[in-house]
Amino acid sequence: MIKLYFTPHTCSLASHIALEDAGAEYTTERISFSAEQQKSPAYVAINPKARVPAMVTERGVLTETPAMLAFIAQSFPQAKLAPLDDPFAFAEVQAFNSYLCSTVHISHAHRMRGYRWADEPSSFADMQRKVPQSVTAGFELIEHGMLKGPWVMGDSYTICDPYLFTLAQWLEGDGADLTRLPRVLDHRRRMSELPNVRKAVAVELART
Amino acid sequence: MIKLYFTPHTCSLASHIALEDAGAEYTTERISFSAEQQKSPAYVAINPKARVPAMVTERGVLTETPAMLAFIAQSFPQAKLAPLDDPFAFAEVQAFNSYLCSTVHISHAHRMRGYRWADEPSSFADMQRKVPQSVTAGFELIEHGMLKGPWVMGDSYTICDPYLFTLAQWLEGDGADLTRLPRVLDHRRRMSELPNVRKAVAVELART
Repeated sequence: MIKLYFTPHTCSLASHIALEDAGAEYTTERISFSAEQQKSPAYVAINPKARVPAMVTERGVLTETPAMLAFIAQSFPQAKLAPLDDPFAFAEVQAFNSYLCSTVHISHAHRMRGYRWADEPSSFADMQRKVPQSVTAGFELIEHGMLKGPWVMGDSYTICDPYLFTLAQWLEGDGADLTRLPRVLDHRRRMSELPNVRKAVAVELART
Repeated sequence: MIKLYFTPHTCSLASHIALEDAGAEYTTERISFSAEQQKSPAYVAINPKARVPAMVTERGVLTETPAMLAFIAQSFPQAKLAPLDDPFAFAEVQAFNSYLCSTVHISHAHRMRGYRWADEPSSFADMQRKVPQSVTAGFELIEHGMLKGPWVMGDSYTICDPYLFTLAQWLEGDGADLTRLPRVLDHRRRMSELPNVRKAVAVELART
């Protein structure tokens, strides 16, 4: 049995949706950022990074969304969530997810987590002013090529789709220029109507 | 035939070493940051992100180091560069590489690439002052648990090892507290003595 530690409105939603998509048996536990539960000794014993998501499996704990998504796809091959038998196509999936993790999510993180990389309030304000530009630019590469359509990888839904949907939740808060991202917004709307997505979102928001 | 676009002293070295480790047939082409070749129309046509690395394969272009490393491991299974038949062990490899990409490399990037996330010189100076602390903290999690020893994943050398070695090249420049990282430094020294590592490094530095 898998246990997913999540916090609403964070990237843990991607793995939550993927577990639904996989038909996995799993439980969830909410980590409250407002109560700083991610820094509690009990949680740090599970994830020394003091962040979400973390996923407890029978073999041990996994972290890092791209790795967790690939693990879910490989552990539940019948769900066909990634092209597992094609190293190049699998690498395209992974490259997309790595870009979300290390470029798009990082741009977003400068709105609220500037203290990771600087100390001065003036720097935090400067970072926050830049977020609309950097987040929009990050999504424009997706809009104009990486999102093949109708799903990220084309005709087949993969683990890229819940991850893109999750980060696209933050566009308005980040002040992104939505007029430049019609295909990303259409993908987000179609994702939001899927039963598995609605279920995962409802579970996360019901506990807040 | 694979072609790797690299720039000396960047994370492209990880894939370069892995291609050597895989016994792959490949060529390399140097992209000069000082000449801003990464922004040239010819290179942007290959990698719209205008960054290195990029790897041209018979099927198309791949980017993002974690995805490229997994692709190399999967494409050359006889080299045994990752536990390909064990989704959990493979996920541990990927989680390590994702952490390097999205946490350690990002901390480092605030020394020279602050313009990605801010605009003011005062912010860049603030970011640069923080780099020794954030990079040391990122490597301390590796020092105290993630690096199992003798190799990252324990007894077996994997695609994690060239990636850790590559980012550990930057420790002195980032002002990290080396006294806190003896196991990371020992790993770096042992890596630097491997013939494949020496060859990849020599090729990259010979062209500068």
